[in-house]
Amino acid sequence: MKYFTYKETALTGGFLYEKEHLNRDVTIHAVYDRFDETGRIGAFRFESDKADIFWDSDVAKWMEGASYILAKHPNVELEQKVETLIDLIEKNQGEDGYFNIHYTVQEPDGRWTKRPNHELYCAGHLFEAAIAYADATGKDRFLKCMEKYADYIYKIFVEDDSAMFSTPGHEEIELALVRMYRYTGKKKYLDLAAHFINRRGVAEKDGHSSYDQSHLPVREQTEAVGHAVRAVYLYSAMADLALELEDEALKKACKALYEDIINHKMYITGGIGSCHLGETFSKPYDLPNGEAYTETCAGIGLMFFCQRMLALEHHASYADTIERVLYNGLLSGLSLDGKAFFYENPLEITMLDHFSNEYGRRRFPITQRREAFSCSCCPPNINRLFPRLAEYIYGLDGDTLYINQFASSQLNADGIQVETETNYPVNGNIRIRAEGVKKIAVRIPSWCAAYDLPVPHTLKNGYAVIENCTEFVLNLDMIPFAIRSNPHVVKDSGRLCIQAGPIVYCAESVDNGENLHAFAIPATFDYIMQFDKTLGLNTLTIDAFRYPDTENKLYIRAADAPKLSPAKLKLIPYYAFANRGESDMLVWFNEKI
Amino acid sequence: MKYFTYKETALTGGFLYEKEHLNRDVTIHAVYDRFDETGRIGAFRFESDKADIFWDSDVAKWMEGASYILAKHPNVELEQKVETLIDLIEKNQGEDGYFNIHYTVQEPDGRWTKRPNHELYCAGHLFEAAIAYADATGKDRFLKCMEKYADYIYKIFVEDDSAMFSTPGHEEIELALVRMYRYTGKKKYLDLAAHFINRRGVAEKDGHSSYDQSHLPVREQTEAVGHAVRAVYLYSAMADLALELEDEALKKACKALYEDIINHKMYITGGIGSCHLGETFSKPYDLPNGEAYTETCAGIGLMFFCQRMLALEHHASYADTIERVLYNGLLSGLSLDGKAFFYENPLEITMLDHFSNEYGRRRFPITQRREAFSCSCCPPNINRLFPRLAEYIYGLDGDTLYINQFASSQLNADGIQVETETNYPVNGNIRIRAEGVKKIAVRIPSWCAAYDLPVPHTLKNGYAVIENCTEFVLNLDMIPFAIRSNPHVVKDSGRLCIQAGPIVYCAESVDNGENLHAFAIPATFDYIMQFDKTLGLNTLTIDAFRYPDTENKLYIRAADAPKLSPAKLKLIPYYAFANRGESDMLVWFNEKI
Repeated sequence: MKYFTYKETALTGGFLYEKEHLNRDVTIHAVYDRFDETGRIGAFRFESDKADIFWDSDVAKWMEGASYILAKHPNVELEQKVETLIDLIEKNQGEDGYFNIHYTVQEPDGRWTKRPNHELYCAGHLFEAAIAYADATGKDRFLKCMEKYADYIYKIFVEDDSAMFSTPGHEEIELALVRMYRYTGKKKYLDLAAHFINRRGVAEKDGHSSYDQSHLPVREQTEAVGHAVRAVYLYSAMADLALELEDEALKKACKALYEDIINHKMYITGGIGSCHLGETFSKPYDLPNGEAYTETCAGIGLMFFCQRMLALEHHASYADTIERVLYNGLLSGLSLDGKAFFYENPLEITMLDHFSNEYGRRRFPITQRREAFSCSCCPPNINRLFPRLAEYIYGLDGDTLYINQFASSQLNADGIQVETETNYPVNGNIRIRAEGVKKIAVRIPSWCAAYDLPVPHTLKNGYAVIENCTEFVLNLDMIPFAIRSNPHVVKDSGRLCIQAGPIVYCAESVDNGENLHAFAIPATFDYIMQFDKTLGLNTLTIDAFRYPDTENKLYIRAADAPKLSPAKLKLIPYYAFANRGESDMLVWFNEKI
Repeated sequence: MKYFTYKETALTGGFLYEKEHLNRDVTIHAVYDRFDETGRIGAFRFESDKADIFWDSDVAKWMEGASYILAKHPNVELEQKVETLIDLIEKNQGEDGYFNIHYTVQEPDGRWTKRPNHELYCAGHLFEAAIAYADATGKDRFLKCMEKYADYIYKIFVEDDSAMFSTPGHEEIELALVRMYRYTGKKKYLDLAAHFINRRGVAEKDGHSSYDQSHLPVREQTEAVGHAVRAVYLYSAMADLALELEDEALKKACKALYEDIINHKMYITGGIGSCHLGETFSKPYDLPNGEAYTETCAGIGLMFFCQRMLALEHHASYADTIERVLYNGLLSGLSLDGKAFFYENPLEITMLDHFSNEYGRRRFPITQRREAFSCSCCPPNINRLFPRLAEYIYGLDGDTLYINQFASSQLNADGIQVETETNYPVNGNIRIRAEGVKKIAVRIPSWCAAYDLPVPHTLKNGYAVIENCTEFVLNLDMIPFAIRSNPHVVKDSGRLCIQAGPIVYCAESVDNGENLHAFAIPATFDYIMQFDKTLGLNTLTIDAFRYPDTENKLYIRAADAPKLSPAKLKLIPYYAFANRGESDMLVWFNEKI
């Protein structure tokens, strides 16, 4: 399946459209300002010795995001900011093509000596930014610089093998090099990507750590392990390479890794990387809620991986996962006002647990989004993802148009015109008009128990395939439902969570009073659904129950089942938690059996 | 209420009797051997510079325990070990009376300079050992040494106020001084105890830290805070002093602190000090199960405190708490073979949670008891508690004999003869014969929903008071029942635990297969109770339920209540967990409503 790019498609209204606008109007500027304040922008002048090893990548991701915005919405001021950065990159790039602020200014003798230090990772993000800017503006000055850098890296790592390591300590450059190959047509970049991927877990110089997925040759990897962002960036590149080289062994590994993630290591919100120790995947089913790490970047990386898997294989599961991440564990990373960020996206906040004393504190994610972090990878990752959200909607394979996501949007490319009109995910009514294709394969989400599609169709791999039809309306049943987790997820045992459409819901104490754990919900329930303009989505008020108090005693004899009393439980979309001050929050509720 | 001492009473059979024997036959020797191997015994020769700041107290507690054993069971070899240590103490005690291995050998200039460093704590334990040995053997050589030391401490802290601090950083000496006053009759020691207690939270030299309960003057303290062992040792001394001085303000503080513990900060096992950060009390209702710290010593300290509260006030609640600790969270500290120890006594082991990687490990208590610890306070605390278990049974106030605990035992003192015959807590049948008292007040445990006492009686403060009756049989209903915790204890929300008599039960995966969280139990249930000779108590097999598997999917739509299947759940007494290899363990189970 080939994707239609963000330039070929456009969001025309609705929830995702609003988020795209929020990024363009607020977030892209907020991130720049924070990067300017923290010295990240100024560091490109090569005058400060404070540049952290990943600062190049932070700014590169912002430049990439700005480029996508500029492609559709010219903005002289924004373009000038990018141009100024490119001036500095051009000016400070080494004769040999090398570009890295930290190493050039602070560790001039350290170049290519420290594998974990993000050197190639920064290069990868600069490459992606350069491609994005060239593609968006037609100006290839930045890209030329980065091609020179890539050529130099090729020499160091392939021709000379002169670095102290063989593969990146933090993967990213691999997928950037595939992009560079695709954009420039230069096979050398694909070869370099393949070199890095194939040497991983093989090169003796690099050791064998599961933390950075070098514990095994990549084709032998079947379990998602180690640093979650590193992992999904690598798997994305593996899927890219599998597609380019028709490498079945690599594809098989990608499928195994994907299955391991979604069957054992993914939160209901699509969050991955449950453990804060090294920001890693944990053991299968180890999905603590309050301590969930689930970095925003890991969610974005999982979307990248799924998008590439969809290109490899037409199965709606990948689009289902993209949807789960997008509307839940990724969006939660951004505040409603577009200015503040979660790095970690927990599934529970119980302030009672957040104990500290002079001997330390129990470790928990922060409870309110912040405008800036010392490690600020997530904010610019949102900057570069949001302008391309439309890219996740439409795909083409032969004479079949794939509709993977639902949003009011237009596609006009390759002689194909498509228009989708919908308020999804506020409701499940989706009108699609398409011309120029023979077949339309529209995803029926796996969460959807019932749908109405009054045109002849067959079901295949999670898609309803319709032939010779230019207009139809699909209705997805958006009635709220309860979800139960695998009983091996002990932290969710005896619990339910609520989803409606793709939206996972949570409760906050700001709506429901203290002690959200005292609520119990049945698997089926009455509810009131109400559109909330601020959230752009529906809230739910469900008929639930509350455990009685125990007369201030700590323990009471339970002579009988508890006398639960009826109680209304107000639920909001998970993504919107923590936007009204510090509050307890819960996703998984006790089940009233 | 006055207690009858361990010398006046004797366990004559049954569960506690077996534990007393285990300590006398195995544990006292095992602890000595470990202390010898680790250099703690040898350190008394003052030749090694490796003595830790608390080593004196470790050995002193062992000496105290050995003394109680010697009082009733002469043992030349054991007595010789104590005598050899006393020889060394006598030989190495300073001219001025000072005795501390670490400071004398390693920090001769550091004496009385570092408040947190257990200097007075070690002294207190030496005092208790000396009193025990004198009382047990009639030989007062050790006590004379320690009186000299106490006199010296009086001079330093009361007369000269010449130390760098005013009160102990780790409380213990206060209660030891009250004991010394009671044994020697010298008021000076009571004054010194009062001095330390009254200066706490007042003395400017010491700062004001809640960690060691010096945040407020003791009479103003109402919340149990800080290091749990320090806290209950202090509260014990406060209760002692309140009794000796008839100090109502101090008594009121003790009652408030007791109420705070049992209503907000105590596990169902009687464990206290839920937080590993500084081994402290946490916030009210913060009682995590898997991470429970609940040090064995804190349980022992809570028993000390309750025993003293009972002396202050005739209310069975204190005896209820003693029973809860004794049969559950304290006994769990010792392996069935009497040789290995838990320092921490968690209420859940889920090995899935015990994740570690190169970036660290999630902190959890150890899962198997160990024979030795670098900080080895708990093992000798068991040594000194077990020989005196009989002391918790009988009390006297005026013409009323109080029966606080139930165990086959004899009392012969003050013209009173009592004999209790029972298999408690294997069953609830208790035959009591008493001569020489007018009234008998027998505790009706608060866990007991029904009892049979076929003699006229009135109920008062948790006791059934019987007049002019020399023999009766009390039958306590020992049918297993479920307990529900206060809904504010979020970690237990939607859960039940099972108790029968005073015994809290747990399940282990060694009996029930993996994933104990997949079980659900109703508030009322059928069961089979079976005596287990190895445990000395009953095991339970209850008719429970199991959640179904979810077809290997991580999440499924819960269209209806889960199809729970009937399942037998084997339960063993909590105290016996982790005696059959590493195993998951659970106390609080999902409730089937």
